[in-house]
Amino acid sequence: MQQYFISKEDLEKNRITGDDVFHIRSVMRGRVGDKFIVTDESLMYLVSIVSIEKDVVNFKKEEAMSLDTELPFFVDIYQGYPKGDKLDDICKHSTELGVNKVYAVNMKRSIVKIDPKKLEAKTLRYDTIMKEASEQSHRTRKAHFGGIIDLKKIDFSNYDSLILAYEESAKQGEYSNFRTEVLKMKEGSRMAILIGPEGGIDETEVKYLTKLGFIPSGLGKRILRTETASLYALAAISYESELK
Amino acid sequence: MQQYFISKEDLEKNRITGDDVFHIRSVMRGRVGDKFIVTDESLMYLVSIVSIEKDVVNFKKEEAMSLDTELPFFVDIYQGYPKGDKLDDICKHSTELGVNKVYAVNMKRSIVKIDPKKLEAKTLRYDTIMKEASEQSHRTRKAHFGGIIDLKKIDFSNYDSLILAYEESAKQGEYSNFRTEVLKMKEGSRMAILIGPEGGIDETEVKYLTKLGFIPSGLGKRILRTETASLYALAAISYESELK
Repeated sequence: MQQYFISKEDLEKNRITGDDVFHIRSVMRGRVGDKFIVTDESLMYLVSIVSIEKDVVNFKKEEAMSLDTELPFFVDIYQGYPKGDKLDDICKHSTELGVNKVYAVNMKRSIVKIDPKKLEAKTLRYDTIMKEASEQSHRTRKAHFGGIIDLKKIDFSNYDSLILAYEESAKQGEYSNFRTEVLKMKEGSRMAILIGPEGGIDETEVKYLTKLGFIPSGLGKRILRTETASLYALAAISYESELK
Repeated sequence: MQQYFISKEDLEKNRITGDDVFHIRSVMRGRVGDKFIVTDESLMYLVSIVSIEKDVVNFKKEEAMSLDTELPFFVDIYQGYPKGDKLDDICKHSTELGVNKVYAVNMKRSIVKIDPKKLEAKTLRYDTIMKEASEQSHRTRKAHFGGIIDLKKIDFSNYDSLILAYEESAKQGEYSNFRTEVLKMKEGSRMAILIGPEGGIDETEVKYLTKLGFIPSGLGKRILRTETASLYALAAISYESELK
């Protein structure tokens, strides 16, 4: 079922305004009586359409819905900037799997260098992908794209746990750090997971990150592609914290 | 590092033959001394090139390598045939994550109907994707594409556990079945995981499958796209069985 994030005011006034009106009318071909889900990221309702006007869709609330679709702690992915359109998929799928924020990180072995003129447009594009994926996966909180940033400019001091997805760890038989860290997390804790680009993480970066407190961690016994590592970590966190 | 699956005979004779010779010469631009990994799915070695001829590459064995890159039990994915090129990604990423076989299943709500004339070519194509992903992720066993089949023609009697990824389960708060089943698995056990296409699983199919012993299971609290469900399940299995 389609879901829309709306403002607190619109939720109180039983209406949808803005771009979503076009979406309901032209993409969903909405009619009076059709049902969908709305949330202001605090309350969530199943609603049905009462009337469709030019710039507003009016609805009535049918039923309050469970808000419990979020991971119990905040997980941010710091993704070494990958090639092609892989970041689209990472943003989309990590949102489905419960990520809080995704950041794209310029690292030594990132092949793609972002044209500074395109920074704003790209950031908006990834954030839109994550908003739509939040709606599609029926999340109560919008996941966000945090921006494209240089590794050395990131402040990691607010996290409770720092994970470095590191294939050398896996090769050397390190298979316990990630799980140990996940098991330490409490409700509301914050975890950052850093994943290198296709070419991997440069040794100087590994030194820099371990000095900051990052824990090199193997994610299973096989070599994962850069676009699979974030999904592995988030699925494992969901499994550990949500499937009892 | 590049990896090739070779025959037992070629491994004994320290040589590579067939299509991989072209790959080494033209794609990898291999030279004497270059190192790569070979396996006959039983033994695995780091080797270096001794000479490159027209139809054969000769190598010497540098070092025996660990064979321990496989999940402790066999997991087969039965994927309701999805739209577009999603099955490419499912085959690729589930191979990285340790799948044994992937089957594409014709189900009531599959939008794509396969032209029987293209069946063989498609099957070969998906199997090649999985062979290459097996090499890239340094697996010791090749993962295989099992074929494109109708749901009612599948024999599920050889499995120890049958999981039905079912979003209605998640909506109704079913969050324990999958984990319970994973924890029951022993070394060498076999698990089948069935995932519906984009439109979901028809009610008559759910009845048919539960009669066969399939356990409807929620995979976390959010609604996953069809192409994300297999990755969730495999990552969770790796986390549970490989990260101690």
